[in-house]
Amino acid sequence: MMRDALSTGGDQNGYGPVAGIRELREAAAGYWERRGLPTDPDLVVAGPGSKPLLYALLLAIGGDVAIAAPSWVSYAAQSHLSGGQPLFVPTAPAQGGVPEPDALAQAVTEARAAGRDIRAVITTCPDNPTGTVASRGTVRRLTEVAQELDLVIISDEIYRDLVHDPTTVVHSPAEFAPERTVITTGLSKNLALGGWRIGVARLPDSDTGRHIHAALLGIASEIWSSPSGPVQRAAAYAFQEPAEIVDLVARSRRLHGLVARAVAERFRAAGVPVIAPQAAFYLYPDFGVWREWLGEAHGVTTGPELTRMLLDRYGMGVLPAVEFGESTHALRVRVATSLLYGESEAQRYSALAAEDPTALPWIRAHLDRISEVLDEVRQEQPAVAVPAMAS
Amino acid sequence: MMRDALSTGGDQNGYGPVAGIRELREAAAGYWERRGLPTDPDLVVAGPGSKPLLYALLLAIGGDVAIAAPSWVSYAAQSHLSGGQPLFVPTAPAQGGVPEPDALAQAVTEARAAGRDIRAVITTCPDNPTGTVASRGTVRRLTEVAQELDLVIISDEIYRDLVHDPTTVVHSPAEFAPERTVITTGLSKNLALGGWRIGVARLPDSDTGRHIHAALLGIASEIWSSPSGPVQRAAAYAFQEPAEIVDLVARSRRLHGLVARAVAERFRAAGVPVIAPQAAFYLYPDFGVWREWLGEAHGVTTGPELTRMLLDRYGMGVLPAVEFGESTHALRVRVATSLLYGESEAQRYSALAAEDPTALPWIRAHLDRISEVLDEVRQEQPAVAVPAMAS
Repeated sequence: MMRDALSTGGDQNGYGPVAGIRELREAAAGYWERRGLPTDPDLVVAGPGSKPLLYALLLAIGGDVAIAAPSWVSYAAQSHLSGGQPLFVPTAPAQGGVPEPDALAQAVTEARAAGRDIRAVITTCPDNPTGTVASRGTVRRLTEVAQELDLVIISDEIYRDLVHDPTTVVHSPAEFAPERTVITTGLSKNLALGGWRIGVARLPDSDTGRHIHAALLGIASEIWSSPSGPVQRAAAYAFQEPAEIVDLVARSRRLHGLVARAVAERFRAAGVPVIAPQAAFYLYPDFGVWREWLGEAHGVTTGPELTRMLLDRYGMGVLPAVEFGESTHALRVRVATSLLYGESEAQRYSALAAEDPTALPWIRAHLDRISEVLDEVRQEQPAVAVPAMAS
Repeated sequence: MMRDALSTGGDQNGYGPVAGIRELREAAAGYWERRGLPTDPDLVVAGPGSKPLLYALLLAIGGDVAIAAPSWVSYAAQSHLSGGQPLFVPTAPAQGGVPEPDALAQAVTEARAAGRDIRAVITTCPDNPTGTVASRGTVRRLTEVAQELDLVIISDEIYRDLVHDPTTVVHSPAEFAPERTVITTGLSKNLALGGWRIGVARLPDSDTGRHIHAALLGIASEIWSSPSGPVQRAAAYAFQEPAEIVDLVARSRRLHGLVARAVAERFRAAGVPVIAPQAAFYLYPDFGVWREWLGEAHGVTTGPELTRMLLDRYGMGVLPAVEFGESTHALRVRVATSLLYGESEAQRYSALAAEDPTALPWIRAHLDRISEVLDEVRQEQPAVAVPAMAS
C-alpha cells in the first residue's frame, strides 16, 4: 500500500507548495492530534527528511543552540554549519536527550553573560544515543527553564512511536510550553523508511511560531524548494496511520525492545553497566568500570581508543561518547541493535514476525558474539568485584 | 516507465550512500559522457534537487561567489544564507548567465584588494532569466579569467537539453577548465519533473575537485543524508536516456522554442525589444524604450512598479529585473512561457503533441492577450518612432 501511494504519487511532477502538499500536512496534523497535540495543518512544514528541517530551523531561529551531551551527532555538526557554536549541557542518568534543566539554566545564563546569543534548546525524546525517555518531571522543568530564559524548544520526536513498552508515555515539551515548542518527526525511524527522505515540523500556534514558520519557509524555498512529490503522497498515507502501518510500527517496537533488552543483559552479565533502554534501537553501556584494566591490558585510555580496539580486534562496531559531545575520556559507547536483525530482507522480515526474535539463529549468534567479545576483553582482568550496575 | 522505476524503487528503504546509489551516479556519468564530458561516477554526487547541491557547494567552497546580473534569484539568496555576500557582475547582451569576463576580472580584483575573499563564480548555460546561450568565445574567456584568478566555476546546466534549435551547441566551462569546473543539473527542467526533487553534481577530476567532493559529502551528510531512494531509481532510468525520455525532451524543447519565439514576436510587434530566446522557457524583454511614457501615463519609474501595474491592471504576471540582481530602475522583466501551455494536464499534453502549439486555442488566446495588454499600455503613447530592436 505504501508503494501504491508512492507510485500514484508519480503524477506529482510540478513544484508543489514549499511547505508540502495539503494532504500530507493534514495527515501529519491528525497524527499529532491523536497524540494529544492539536495541530493546525497551516503550521506544518514538510521537508526532505527531518534532518534538513532541523538545519533550516537553526538558520531560521538564528543565534546559538543548547544541546544535550550526549546527543545525536548531527545537532552539533548542523550548528557549526549554520555558523554557530553549540552549547553542550549534560543530561541526568536515564533522562537522555534533555539537557538537565538546572544545568541548562546555569549554562545559558553564563553564556549570555559572556556575550553569547543562545536562542534555542534541542531535546530528543526518546533519545539517541541512550535509548531512554526523559520523565514528565524533567521535560516539564525543561520547559519552565525555557520560558524563564525565553528559549525556543526544538523537540526531535523521531523515535516517539518506538517506545518498547506501549504504556510508556512520551511527554513532549509542547504539552507544557506549546507557545515555544517546535516538534520534528519523520518516517525514517518508525517505519524504517530512512531512504525515502521525508520529515515534518509542527510550528507553535503563537507569534513566535508564526515568525519561525515564515523564516523556515523562506529558507526551505531557497535550499530545497519542496519535498519530493511522490514521496509526499506516500507519507500522507502513512501519517493517516492505517491498520497496516500501525501493525508494522507495533512489530518494530516489539522487536527493538526484545533485542535491546537482550543486548543490555549481555553487557550487564559481563559486568558492563548500561541504563535500561526504553525506546528505539540504541544502548549506551559504560566501560568506565574497566578503565584501569583497559589501560593496563589494552593500552586504552580514551573512548576512541576503546572503540577502535573493539572494531580492529573483535569486529564490534560501536561509537565512542566523544562523537555525541561527551569527553574523549568517557568510556561510554553507543550500540545500535538494528544491525543485529539480519543481513537480508528475508531475515529482517523473519525478525519482525518472530514470536521470540532473540531465538532466531542469526540474532542469537550476534548476542553470543557480544558476550564472547566482552569476556575476551576482560579475560585477564584481575579478580575484583564488579561494581553494581548504574540502573 | 518512469513511474515503474519509481515504484520499483520503493524497496530503497534504508539509508543509501550520501552521494547517491551507484546506478544513478553511473547513469549521470553516461549522460555527461554523451555530451563530450568524460565523467568518473565516483566524482558524481546526487542530491534532493540541484538547488540543495548548489547551496552545499557554496558552503563547501567557502568565501564569496561572483554571479551574473541578471541571474536566477536563488544564487544570491543562497549566498546570503551561507553567510556570504554575492558579487554581482553584469553580462553582455545575448550572453546571459555568464558574467562578462573582463568585468569579472576587474570586479574580483577590486573586491580582493578591498579584503574580500571571492573563491568561485556561478555560470548558467542556457540562462534563466534571459533564455540565451553564451557563445563559445564568452565561455572560453570566462574560464581563462577563472584560471588567472584561481576561481572555482560552478556551472549550472539545468537547461542544457532545452536549446530550441538542436544544432545550437552548449559550451560548458568544463570543456576549457576541467580542473576547476563543477557542473550541476537535474530532472526538473528537461523532464518537467521539478516536484520529484533530484539533482546531480559532477566534480572535477583534480585535487581541487576531490577537495570539494569530500567537503560536499560531509555537508550533504549533515543536511540531507541522501536523496530519496525511490526517486534515485527513477532518475537513474532517466539519465540513461532511453528512447521515451529522449522523445519527451525533444517535444518539450520544440514546444518551448515555438512558444518562446511567438511570445518574442508579440513583444517586438508592440515595440518592446527582446533578445531572441534560444533555450528554455524564458524571455527578458526590455520596457526601457517606453520609460518616459510609462512615467507620464502610468506613474511607473521602477521595475517593481512596472510589474505591479502589469499584474494589478492587466493580470499579467512577470518578474522585474531587480529580482535577478539588476537595478530597481531597470525595466526589463522576465516572462515565463511555461504558464501558457495550459491549466490542465490534458492541455499540456496536447501542447507537447501539437504540430503547431501556437495554433491551439488556449495558447493562441494567451498570445493575443499579451498583444492586447502591450497595446493598452502604450495606447496613449505619443506618436514617436519605435526604436530598433536590440536583437
